[in-house]
Parts: sequence; structure tokens; C-alpha cells
Amino acid sequence: MELPSGRSKAVTDEARTLAWAYLSRVAEPPCDEIAALVGDVGPLDAAHRVAAGEVSDALRERTAARRDIDAAQADLDLLERRGGRLITPDDDEWPTLAFASFGGSAVRERPHGRAPMALWAIGPARLDEAAERAAAIVGTRAASGYGEHVAADLAAGLAEQDVTVVSGGAYGIDGVAHRAVLAAEGLTVAVLAGGIDVLYPAGHSSLLHRIGNSGLLLTEYPPGVRPARHRFLTRNRLVAALGTATVVVEAGVRSGAANTAAWARALGRVVCAVPGPVTSASSMGCHTLLRTGAELVTRAEEVIELVGRAGEFADEEPRPIGPLDALSDAEKQVYEALPARGVCSVDEIAVASGLAPTAVLGPLAMLEIAGLARRDDGCWRLVRRPASPR
Amino acid sequence: MELPSGRSKAVTDEARTLAWAYLSRVAEPPCDEIAALVGDVGPLDAAHRVAAGEVSDALRERTAARRDIDAAQADLDLLERRGGRLITPDDDEWPTLAFASFGGSAVRERPHGRAPMALWAIGPARLDEAAERAAAIVGTRAASGYGEHVAADLAAGLAEQDVTVVSGGAYGIDGVAHRAVLAAEGLTVAVLAGGIDVLYPAGHSSLLHRIGNSGLLLTEYPPGVRPARHRFLTRNRLVAALGTATVVVEAGVRSGAANTAAWARALGRVVCAVPGPVTSASSMGCHTLLRTGAELVTRAEEVIELVGRAGEFADEEPRPIGPLDALSDAEKQVYEALPARGVCSVDEIAVASGLAPTAVLGPLAMLEIAGLARRDDGCWRLVRRPASPR
Repeated sequence: MELPSGRSKAVTDEARTLAWAYLSRVAEPPCDEIAALVGDVGPLDAAHRVAAGEVSDALRERTAARRDIDAAQADLDLLERRGGRLITPDDDEWPTLAFASFGGSAVRERPHGRAPMALWAIGPARLDEAAERAAAIVGTRAASGYGEHVAADLAAGLAEQDVTVVSGGAYGIDGVAHRAVLAAEGLTVAVLAGGIDVLYPAGHSSLLHRIGNSGLLLTEYPPGVRPARHRFLTRNRLVAALGTATVVVEAGVRSGAANTAAWARALGRVVCAVPGPVTSASSMGCHTLLRTGAELVTRAEEVIELVGRAGEFADEEPRPIGPLDALSDAEKQVYEALPARGVCSVDEIAVASGLAPTAVLGPLAMLEIAGLARRDDGCWRLVRRPASPR
Repeated sequence: MELPSGRSKAVTDEARTLAWAYLSRVAEPPCDEIAALVGDVGPLDAAHRVAAGEVSDALRERTAARRDIDAAQADLDLLERRGGRLITPDDDEWPTLAFASFGGSAVRERPHGRAPMALWAIGPARLDEAAERAAAIVGTRAASGYGEHVAADLAAGLAEQDVTVVSGGAYGIDGVAHRAVLAAEGLTVAVLAGGIDVLYPAGHSSLLHRIGNSGLLLTEYPPGVRPARHRFLTRNRLVAALGTATVVVEAGVRSGAANTAAWARALGRVVCAVPGPVTSASSMGCHTLLRTGAELVTRAEEVIELVGRAGEFADEEPRPIGPLDALSDAEKQVYEALPARGVCSVDEIAVASGLAPTAVLGPLAMLEIAGLARRDDGCWRLVRRPASPR
């Protein structure tokens, strides 16, 4: 491969960027061997060695098909023409936080959760800032009306609280989540399973353009790479890694969303799922996740509690307050002992409630103050009676 | 109080039964003090001491209102006329298993989960056998169509697998569960919050009669006691205690079903909840339970797994099998590298897949055998392509 030589910082930076671009294409990600080599000798040396075939047998095998293809400059030119940039571990915006748990030297311990070589990106958002407070919202392409409603609600609620919503740009739940964030003028990131110039699915190219204009389009695949089954699965680990929590809104029993959730779990991220009717096939994957340890979430506040900064907690669900809630047990017992109609004596109340006659007087006085009972010619009557409880 | 005296076994048995009946009315359950006294001196002595007022100040207070009421014989006569029986700790069918964790000497350690004095019962089922393999199904009176559907399904599924379904006889989820069991000719137990002669709610008196004819009607309250708020809550602990698992099908944020679940948890029983739409108020209580540790269940098999004898496990949900499921990773990668239309060479496949040219030959041969790829004049083409994955 051709790399500029020389000693100035600018030239070195350019050479490193070209090396990252070359490395990003030469092995199909994720690739243990190339990650280990880059970790050991850095991107420049790694690129030279791979191009020269001076690497381990395993890596030579993994790079044999593409090591003579040097499209790095052309790829970067294409990206520049589209207003994009290659985000590499050299850059300030490389999301160290999000990838820290499985990047760099941790590669060997967690081989399945390795960081990408580099990220091809289009969009105004800074990746490190976007990932600082982010949740992934994912789900089946075959979303139900219920799932779409919940996804839109969650995504808008997160956007309103400045949580970045990460997803995969697919039909169904992904698309609904992205759109709801755009409508709420929030920040959304779409991670693609192919080149940044291969907007997929085609029916979402306008949506993906809008995301690239206001948020961030990201992919670890160099230009021209077309989405494929294993690339969707590989892509899912980036969606999971970028969100502090991954929320599965709807998922069938076999679902890419369940795969993203598995990545999230493997990466030590929080896995959340939204429940739905047990009669709905598109909630079955969510229920399986919930049966195996995922957090149940019903609204954006509960997700924010999981991704938010310390001290952010969801408010308690408002609970209706009944007139008897402030009463002590003895007061409730006396209250219940009062007849629905008519009056009764203190002794009768004692028998009906099971309390001693002396023990009903205090509660009766409290009930009178609360307006729930009334003294009537030496006896007592009920003032009002709420609906009978279960 | 009048108790028969004498030494023959039959006379002693009768005296003990009268004593249990007297004790069952004299203090409003649950009553720590009377349980402790019976545990110490047995029912005969306990009844004599309570009637004579020769007890602790606390217990004298608790029994002051009713200690001179001796309705034991009349209560037992009424029960006998209705074909019922008083089940006491003296009887073989007293469910030692279900109450073991909080009965007898454990009273002081778990004061809130104490066993009833005795159980007024009507029905052909033996309580110990019914409780051996039982689940409680409970839920809101304001059930939705969804909740009713799920409750009926669960109850019928449990009945078909010889699991006793325990509930509270209320409108809504309880009633649906009881009815589904009766329709499936299974065994159902209704635990009442008042006397066995006070069938409540009135609209369920026919249902409750049917339960008493084929299953079991139970209550710890003596005849004539009318249901009241605190009695529903006290009753709920028996529903929870009789089921190895308590399944909440639907519950609002304030719900008696949530109270039953709290009892089940306090008693060390399994708490289950059925999820529903997050947009449905009648599933909110279930979701709160699920967020705080309840087991998520979607069908009867999953409940049976929790209540069943060792070795009973729910079958895995059937999963659809795709044509690519049997492929290795390399085979999948090669498969995805084949163009949707037209043919390509081995080298082109190697570039597209990121595998070495020598590494694609084996996978191609396997794909050919699987009928997924076809050799065509030295090149390769796809034979068929399933729907693109997420």
C-alpha cells in the first residue's frame, strides 16, 4: 500500500488516517488478530505489516483476499465529498467511555466485544458527547401498532431529556424511534450494517439523510460494503455499545433486537425490555428477555433512571389516594364495623370489630374528626362509604 | 363457655372442635396473642382461659368484646346443615405443608404470616391434597378483556395439569379463573373474607355454590361475619399461603391483588405476574411487581414449572428454523457474499466475504450440498435467498 512518508505532524496524521482506513477494509470485522496487532504496534506499522504479508498465519489468512486492495484514499475522498469524517482512536471524539470496557488491551479477555478499527461518520454530532448519555431503542421490523406507539413515546421522552437515541435505521421499531427523536428535535444516531454510501433499507434513505444532517450516521464498514446477515449482527454490537442501556420495544422469538440485547448484556450494558400482551407474537422476545434478567421499562423516565446521571430517578407513579388511606389499622377496623345503614352502640361496634369496647373510642373520635363517622344520640353512624374493596 | 367434659376420645375430640370454633370467633384474626397462647397450652386450655379472662392484658383486651359470646355449637350446627366441616390443626387434612413456614412455633418470628385458628370449609376436596400442588390466580375486579382472556387461559391450563387454582371469588380476574377451572373440570378453591354463609359478592353466589359442590369454599371467619376491608386483606394472606405460586394477571396501581402478592412474597412463596400493554392501567400493578422481582409468566406451563413437582419444566417456545440455521459462521459469510443476481468467481467471493480464497472453497461446497449455492461454469450463484435479516 502507498502511504505518505515524512516526519511532520500533519503528514503523520494523514498517514495514520490512511492506515486506519486501510485496516478498516482489509479484514472483515470483527477481527481479533488485527485488533491485537494494532494494539501492539499501532495502526501505521500494522497496516504496513498486513500489506506486506508479514503477520501471523491467522491474520495473513484473514487479510489474504483484500490486502492488495488499497482503497483508503479513494474511500476518504468519497467520505469528504459527502461531508463525513473517519473517527479513529486518534480522535478526541472517539468514545473512550463507551468502548473502554472492551477496547484496546481488553481485546483478548473479551474477544467478542471488540471496538471497531474506525468509524465512518456523517453528521454534526460529536460521537463522544452523543454517547455520554445515550440509550439504544431497538425492535422488530414487524412492529405492531402498539409497539410503534410505545417506541415513539419512549424515543420522544428520551430526546426531551437530552438522551441520545441510538438505533439501527431499520424498518419498524428502529425507524419509529429515529423519527420520533427528529420530530422532538433531539439527537439520534443510526449505526449502519454497510458502507456509509449504501443507505439501507432503501425506503429509509430519506430518513437516514435527515439523521446524517442533524445527528450522526455511523458505520465500521468502508464505503461500498453492502449490508449482509453477519454484518447486521456485527453492527448490533455497536448499537449496544453506544447505549448505556438497550431498550427492546418489541421482538419476536427470533429477532435481531434480541441479538442486540445479547450484545448489551455481554458488554455489561443494561438490557431493558418493554412488556406487551402475552397474546402478541411481537412481544414474545421481550418477555423472554424479561424472564432472563432484563429490566422491565414502561416509560422514558424509567430508562432515564438507568442511563441518566447520578441522582436522576423516575418519579413514583401517581397513586390515587382514598379517604381511608390516612387511617390506622384500628381506625379502619372500627370504620368497617359501622353498619352501612342505621346506627349502633359502642358495644356493638366492639363486637363487630373484634376490638375491646375501650379500644374503639379513640378510633371513633378520629373517624369523627375525619368526617367518616358521626355521633348520633349516643350511638354512631357512618358518614359516607367508598366503593367496597376487593 | 360451655364445653363437654369427660375423658373418652370422642368427647375430647368434640370438645377440641368446640374450642377451635370458639377461638375462631373470639378474637379478630390475625391475632398474635391468641396464636401464641394456643401454641403454648393447646386449644382446650386456651379457650377456657380466654373465656375466664385469665390471659395476658393484651389478649384480654383483644377478646373483651366477644369472650362471652359462645356461638361455637350453633356455628358448627349451621356448618353441618350446609354439609361443611371445621378443619383444624387436629385434622389430617390441615395443610401442614402450606402453613409450615409460618404456623405453630414460628408465629413469633413471622407475626404477620400466622396460620388461621381453624378453617370453616364446604366442599368435597381434601384441603391438604388440594394445596399440595396449587397456584393462586388473582387480579383486579376491573379486568380488561385481555386480562379475562389470559386469566381463563392460565386457569384452564393449570386445571388440565392437575394444579389447584386458588382465588378470592371476587368479580373480574378471580371469577374468570374459578369459572375456567370449573369448565375444565379441575379443582378450584375460593377463600372468603366473611362467614361461609355470607356469600360475597352476591352476584357470585351461584358460582360460589358450584365451587362448594366440586372444590372447596374456605374461610377463617365464623358464620355470620360480614366481609370488610381489613378482612379482604387478611383473607388475601390465605390465598397466598395456599398457592405455591401467586399469579397476578391484572392489577391497577392500588389493588388487592398486589396485597396478595405482597403476602406471597412475605411467606416465601413465588410471586408471578402477567405482563400487558404498558398503555393499560389494569396492567400497571403487574409491571410494578415485575420491576420489583416478580417472575414474568405468559402461559400455564411457566407457572407449572414453578409449582410443579421436581422435573416438570416448560417446553421451550417453538422457534421457527431458517435454512441458514445449520450453517457455520464461515458458510454464512460466504453465503452472504454471493450476489443476489448473476454469478461471481471464487476470488470475488473471497473479497466480498473477507475470507481467503482457499477458505471459501469448503463453505461453497457445503452450500452446494445444502442447495443454497450452485456452481455455474466455474463461477457460483445463489440458489435462493430468504428474507433479509434485521
